[in-house]
Amino acid sequence: MLSSKSLRNKVLTIDTMNPNVKNVEYAVRGPIVQRAVQIEKELREGMKKPFTEVIKANIGDAHAMGQQPITFFRQVLALCSYPELLKDNMFPEDAKSRARRILQACGGSSLGAYSASQGIDCVRQDVARYIERRDGGVPCDPDNVYLTSGASDGIVTMLKLLVCGEGASKTGVMISIPQYPLYSAALAELGAVQVNYYLNEEKCWSMDLSELERSLAEARKHCNPKVLCIINPGNPTGQVQSRQCIEDVIRFAAKEHLFLMADEVYQDNVYAEGCQFHSFKKVLFELGPQYSNTVELVSFHSTSKCYMGECGFRGGYMEVINMDPEVKAQLIKLVSVRLCPAVPGQALMDMVVNSPQPGEPSYTTFMKERTATLSLLAEKAKLTEEMLNTVPGITCNPVQGAMYSFPNISLPQKAIKEAKALGQAPDMFYCMKMLEETGICLVPGSGFGQKDGTYHFRMTILPPTDKLKLLLAKVKEFHQKFTRQYS
Amino acid sequence: MLSSKSLRNKVLTIDTMNPNVKNVEYAVRGPIVQRAVQIEKELREGMKKPFTEVIKANIGDAHAMGQQPITFFRQVLALCSYPELLKDNMFPEDAKSRARRILQACGGSSLGAYSASQGIDCVRQDVARYIERRDGGVPCDPDNVYLTSGASDGIVTMLKLLVCGEGASKTGVMISIPQYPLYSAALAELGAVQVNYYLNEEKCWSMDLSELERSLAEARKHCNPKVLCIINPGNPTGQVQSRQCIEDVIRFAAKEHLFLMADEVYQDNVYAEGCQFHSFKKVLFELGPQYSNTVELVSFHSTSKCYMGECGFRGGYMEVINMDPEVKAQLIKLVSVRLCPAVPGQALMDMVVNSPQPGEPSYTTFMKERTATLSLLAEKAKLTEEMLNTVPGITCNPVQGAMYSFPNISLPQKAIKEAKALGQAPDMFYCMKMLEETGICLVPGSGFGQKDGTYHFRMTILPPTDKLKLLLAKVKEFHQKFTRQYS
Repeated sequence: MLSSKSLRNKVLTIDTMNPNVKNVEYAVRGPIVQRAVQIEKELREGMKKPFTEVIKANIGDAHAMGQQPITFFRQVLALCSYPELLKDNMFPEDAKSRARRILQACGGSSLGAYSASQGIDCVRQDVARYIERRDGGVPCDPDNVYLTSGASDGIVTMLKLLVCGEGASKTGVMISIPQYPLYSAALAELGAVQVNYYLNEEKCWSMDLSELERSLAEARKHCNPKVLCIINPGNPTGQVQSRQCIEDVIRFAAKEHLFLMADEVYQDNVYAEGCQFHSFKKVLFELGPQYSNTVELVSFHSTSKCYMGECGFRGGYMEVINMDPEVKAQLIKLVSVRLCPAVPGQALMDMVVNSPQPGEPSYTTFMKERTATLSLLAEKAKLTEEMLNTVPGITCNPVQGAMYSFPNISLPQKAIKEAKALGQAPDMFYCMKMLEETGICLVPGSGFGQKDGTYHFRMTILPPTDKLKLLLAKVKEFHQKFTRQYS
Repeated sequence: MLSSKSLRNKVLTIDTMNPNVKNVEYAVRGPIVQRAVQIEKELREGMKKPFTEVIKANIGDAHAMGQQPITFFRQVLALCSYPELLKDNMFPEDAKSRARRILQACGGSSLGAYSASQGIDCVRQDVARYIERRDGGVPCDPDNVYLTSGASDGIVTMLKLLVCGEGASKTGVMISIPQYPLYSAALAELGAVQVNYYLNEEKCWSMDLSELERSLAEARKHCNPKVLCIINPGNPTGQVQSRQCIEDVIRFAAKEHLFLMADEVYQDNVYAEGCQFHSFKKVLFELGPQYSNTVELVSFHSTSKCYMGECGFRGGYMEVINMDPEVKAQLIKLVSVRLCPAVPGQALMDMVVNSPQPGEPSYTTFMKERTATLSLLAEKAKLTEEMLNTVPGITCNPVQGAMYSFPNISLPQKAIKEAKALGQAPDMFYCMKMLEETGICLVPGSGFGQKDGTYHFRMTILPPTDKLKLLLAKVKEFHQKFTRQYS
């Protein structure tokens, strides 16, 4: 007989589930995006709208916005997937030799075998050589490289190792505000304390030492802050931190005994004159052994951004520096439970760090494709900044790097009041209205965090130039109408 | 100035790290396997050993053991990776049409775009139709299907939702002993209470209702047991549960208000006469609406096992039944944080559930390959059981399904004593000695759990027949020598 209880109640309900999961929020695929998907469906079903298509500028998904994959990468992937093609004459020799090298490193010469949990050996070696080239010869040990399933996987894994304690001794993790909401989501899930430090919007979203100090002192009153996360180039804010700033941050971390997590997935996405990507590792080593032998640092990279934009393959790596050997053993154990990152993503990561070289048959095409993609992004970064700044009530910092603009928007008091009456963040109210009226899908600043009383949205620079121009014109028109309506 | 503290101590040490992670154990890639990798290196470096190669029978990694991928699957993957190949005449039309269908469902027609976090729509639809066919027409709603990164990802995600509470109200999760150590590892990481129920080795590793009752009653004294996990066909034990047994388990779960998690990744790996795979969902629906409308069930599947063996692609799905709609919204939010499962794995999952049909050009080859792989596995299952049972002191249940034998081994008292003096589990001591002397890599039963005072090892049936015979002969010889040595 079934008890009446089991007929009435479910085991798993909103009241009995893990409360940490309930606290998770992820705006980049939140309510706005769900509504956008619904609207697309309504359009397909013939519903009449003041627009004919939804333009998604909510997520850094380059291929979905029409960016073409790098031919060489896809040739190697096809060869690895179906090695019969190695017999074919349609593929260049360098693609074939890359594919053979990867297959030889796979169990049974198949992408279908599990790899080592830390990642395929030869891929980690290639990553190490790439890092050494990037950092002007600073040595990199492949044993410190862990392949991951996108950068997200690495970030979550590191936070898992770091977070512990209860009450006042609970781990605090310092994250920039605005932040990429993977961080807040992971911290909520792990039950860690999110410690906010604010980027300086007036100074193009730079990091201020005094703000780091304020934030840390504040946090020490109620938790045990031991991690400092930086995203450079910035997401959602698109800044590129100066070398000086990175140096300051490293000295701060050393002085304050903080573990550094550097999210550097946009390392090739630098557009602005005078800006340059400086890896945390390189700066750390330039500061001398006093720092390079002590400061614990992990850096993340991914196949999803830069000129590749191969988000769907979930490729990535992390490099750990100065990690305690006992902890490394724990890290290897932890990643072994999930067996391995998807092997096609590992293969793709290998091609990114071991791309065609001068003299190889694919070099010219590869460079042409890579340069074209990055130049176009640079153009669109400039275009976005300029057009947004022509709108009264919108102020946009230069998009120095990454793939996003994060403009400040002035919202009339009446709109703020109406939003609050609906229980919505004012910029959520604004973005939802923009979606319904124009079909443009943006993410409200409140999904990333922002100074109280300021409002923003994040918009990717990824749509094709024509569509981006249209989008920006529509944003302008909408903002003016919205301002009139609520003034 | 650096404080002397920061020069001395690391932020992240074995003492300051997350203690839950320290409690994680995963024997399938544990110390034995690490030693095996080391020995392989020593062999390559010319070190002299009593054997010339390491034979890895520790993990269900079919391709690494020489199993060939299904041609059709790899053709479609190559086409999806490099769509230029669609213009080529070398691929059959059905492979091309599958590839076109998948690409059309991808953003920008590229595997490199993020998919919906729940998985590509058309793949989930294909999964739903596959489940309906498998279960004789029991309906399946694609909205209940979530694509995952292998089955492991789905299992961990579900446990994340389910686990909460502290002290006596902490969630208890019932798992079989022996178990697949992903479960114990995930529970340790989440800080949940592992509740053991023992499979009946005498009755070919079947589930006894009385044992479930004992285990639950015991657990209720100190935690809040609310989940019951079953692996069928069994890992590491290779049994196939009878329909009656599944019915009993469902009635038990309904009566005791337990959430059911059915790990059914070996659903096509059934070899023994008279055995048949019965999905928990099908049996649930056959028990009538009293059960099918109330019992909460999630079933997991994967591209890694069965006749595919495509572990490296990390493809998988889960189907949730009777899940509370509010919890489903939370689940969708949770999976969205990690953006999406790797898209090539999703594409592969699609081919598994939408394989070539009679009349299509690839059908004959596909069926030939599939049948050959499954017949060979059936032969090797029989061979393993028979040869192990010829060894005095080894008793092996029939390998009815999955990919493993889990024989009982008698260890002499002197060996047990010596192991304990070394602080090792006796079967770990045995397996480590076997590895050093023969090059055979097995996993000790203690890594999966077993009744106190019994000892086992898990051995896959995957090596090619010749190598498997050699392996079994070596195991026999080793066991006899070991027994003599310690008697």
